[in-house]
Amino acid sequence: MAQPWNPPPSADHRDRRDRLRELVAGTADVLVVSDLINVRYLTGFTGSNAAVLISAADPDADRISTDGRYITQVAEQSGDLEAVIARNCLAALVEHAGQGGTVRVGFEEHIVTVAAHRDLDGDLVGTSGLVETLREVKDPGEVELLRRACVVADEALAAIIERGLLTPGRTEREVARALEWEMFERGADAVSFETIVATGANSAIPHHRPTPAVLATGDFVKIDFGAAVAGYHSDMTRTYVLGRAADWQREIYELVATAQAAGRAALTPDADLRGVDAAARSVIDDAGYGDKYVHGLGHGIGLQIHEAPGIGSAATGTLPCGAAVTVEPGVYLPGRGGVRIEDSLVVTDGEPDLLTTTDKTFTVI
Amino acid sequence: MAQPWNPPPSADHRDRRDRLRELVAGTADVLVVSDLINVRYLTGFTGSNAAVLISAADPDADRISTDGRYITQVAEQSGDLEAVIARNCLAALVEHAGQGGTVRVGFEEHIVTVAAHRDLDGDLVGTSGLVETLREVKDPGEVELLRRACVVADEALAAIIERGLLTPGRTEREVARALEWEMFERGADAVSFETIVATGANSAIPHHRPTPAVLATGDFVKIDFGAAVAGYHSDMTRTYVLGRAADWQREIYELVATAQAAGRAALTPDADLRGVDAAARSVIDDAGYGDKYVHGLGHGIGLQIHEAPGIGSAATGTLPCGAAVTVEPGVYLPGRGGVRIEDSLVVTDGEPDLLTTTDKTFTVI
Repeated sequence: MAQPWNPPPSADHRDRRDRLRELVAGTADVLVVSDLINVRYLTGFTGSNAAVLISAADPDADRISTDGRYITQVAEQSGDLEAVIARNCLAALVEHAGQGGTVRVGFEEHIVTVAAHRDLDGDLVGTSGLVETLREVKDPGEVELLRRACVVADEALAAIIERGLLTPGRTEREVARALEWEMFERGADAVSFETIVATGANSAIPHHRPTPAVLATGDFVKIDFGAAVAGYHSDMTRTYVLGRAADWQREIYELVATAQAAGRAALTPDADLRGVDAAARSVIDDAGYGDKYVHGLGHGIGLQIHEAPGIGSAATGTLPCGAAVTVEPGVYLPGRGGVRIEDSLVVTDGEPDLLTTTDKTFTVI
Repeated sequence: MAQPWNPPPSADHRDRRDRLRELVAGTADVLVVSDLINVRYLTGFTGSNAAVLISAADPDADRISTDGRYITQVAEQSGDLEAVIARNCLAALVEHAGQGGTVRVGFEEHIVTVAAHRDLDGDLVGTSGLVETLREVKDPGEVELLRRACVVADEALAAIIERGLLTPGRTEREVARALEWEMFERGADAVSFETIVATGANSAIPHHRPTPAVLATGDFVKIDFGAAVAGYHSDMTRTYVLGRAADWQREIYELVATAQAAGRAALTPDADLRGVDAAARSVIDDAGYGDKYVHGLGHGIGLQIHEAPGIGSAATGTLPCGAAVTVEPGVYLPGRGGVRIEDSLVVTDGEPDLLTTTDKTFTVI
C-alpha cells in the first residue's frame, strides 16, 4: 500500500533543491517558494500551510516554514531542514532572509497574490515558474510513482469490466464509484480528479460529471479517470461501445485512434510542442472533424494532474526528455456522442515510455 | 441523488449578485471576480476556468467568462448571463469593462497574483473579501444543502458502526475507505477532505492521514470526515474508545465534551469570535491542558471546507447570524492519544441549528 505519510527526508528532495539553487543564483540571493506543490516537490512536506527558503549560496541556510499544527509532521517528513514555525509562512521566511542583512529575495510572482505581496518587506524580485520548470523533467523515483499510479488505473478498469459493471443498465455514477473503489483497493491515495463516465450523447461533452444516466445498448461510453499514488497522478481515457456498434462510431473511433498514435509518435526530445499537437490535430482536420476537437492534445502530469508542459495549438517551447505527458485527442458530435483516447507517457531518448497499458483497439463490450 | 451538474440558473444566484452589487457601488464601477468558488456562488457555474463581471449600476451589464470547453455547460448552468469566451477570463472581462469608456475596475487582490495583475490594463482597484463576506451568511437553500451533507455523514458513520467495521483488527485505511463508500452510496458528490481515521497514539496527531495501522482494544479512534453535496461541505469529528476505556481516556473525553458544549453555547449572533473561542478554550485551560489544544475552535463551512469566519484566539470580528461554522476543540497527548469532538452548526436568533446529529456521549465500541 502506498504510504505518502511519513516518508523520511529523501536524497531526491535535496537533489531538487540543489538544482533549484543553480537557477536562483542568477536571479536573487534567496528564493522563497510558497506554492504548496512546489514545497512538496522540494521537501516532501505535505501539510496545508508551508513555504521553503532556498539559498543561492549555502544549502545549510535553507529553511522550511509551517505552523504549529505540523510540528511533528514537518520533523518526520522534512527533518533535514530547520523549520521556522509561523502562520504566515511566506512572510516569515522573507523576514528570516532579511535578518542576515540586505539580500535580494525572490518570490513566485505567479503564485503570490497582490495582497500577500503588499505585506512583504524587503528587496523583492519576482520569479516565474522556476520550480515548475524543474518539475517538467521527472527523476527516476517520480517515473516509478507515475507508473504505479497508471498500473492502479489499468487494473481498476480491467476489474470493473471483468465484474460486468460496464454494461447497459448501470448508471454513470455507479460505474464511476465502482472504478474509484477498485483504485482505492489497489493503493490509490486519492483519485486524480473527479472520474468522468459519460454515456450516449453525454460522451460528446468533453468534461462531463457522472449522472444517474443509464448506460444503454449502442452507446459510446467514455471513461476518463486516474489514481494518485504518493502524490503522483495517472490520467487515462478509454471509450467503448456497448452491445453493438454503428458505422459512424467505428469511423470516428478509428480516426481518433489514428490521431492519438500520431501524437504519441511525435513525443521526441526537444520536439516543438505545437508540432506535437499538430501531428495529431492534422489527422482530425484532414478528415473534416477539426471543429469537433475542441481542446489541446495533452498536458504534463506529476504532483498535479495538470502541469507543464501543455501541448496545444497555442503552446510555446519544446518537450524536454523526461517529461511525463498525456496524449488525448477527441472528436465530439453534440447530441450523438464522442470519443477520446488518452494515454500517459514519459518522453525518452527512444520510444516514449507508455505508462497506461490498457488496450485501445475498438472494443464493443 | 444530489445533482450538482446542470442545475438551471437560479434566483438565488441573481439575489447574490444583487447583494454584491451594493457592496461594489461604493468602491468601483464594476468588479471582476476570478476566484472559482466565488464565481460558483454568484452564478452556479462549476467549470475549472471562469470569471464574472458585476456591474455596480446595471444588472444587464453583468457577464460571465469561460473558455471553449465549457460553452454548453455555461449555457446550462448560467444561461441568464451573457458569456465572454476566452482562455484568460480575468483579462477578458477587465478588457470588456474598459470597452464602455473609462471605468474603475475592481479585482480581488487576495486572489489575483502579482503576475496576473501586471497583465491587466485599466483603472484597477483592489478589493478584498467582498464575496467571501456575503458567503459567511448562508441563505436558506445553502443551509438545506449543508444539512443534507451532514445527514449523509451522520448516516455513513452509523452504517460503518452497525456493520461492525469500527472494531479492533481493521486498519485506519479500511475504516476511512468504508466510511467514504457509505457517503457516496448516500449521494455525496465527493468527500469534504481526506478522511482522518487515527487510532491509538495516532489520535494525538491533529491531522493524521489513514495508514495501515491496525485498530486495537483500548485505543482512542478519532474520525474526522465530511461529505460534499452539490458543492456544500459537512464536517464532523467523533472519537470513540475500542473495547475498554481507561480512566485517563474518560477524563480527557469529558473535558473536551464540556469545552465543546461551551463553544456551541457561545454561538450567538454578533458574538465576538475570540470570545467564542475563549468560551471553549478556558475550559481546557482551567483543567491544565491548554498546551495540549494546539488549534483554533472552528471555521466556516459552505462551498469550501474552510471559509470565513475563522474562530480562534487570534480571530477578529464577530459572528453573523446565519453563519455556518464548526466547533471542534481537542486535547492531544503525544504518544498516548487524543480526543476531538466536532459539530457543524448554523447561528440563529435562538439556539444554534445543529446540523451534525450523531451522538457524542462517551462511547466504548
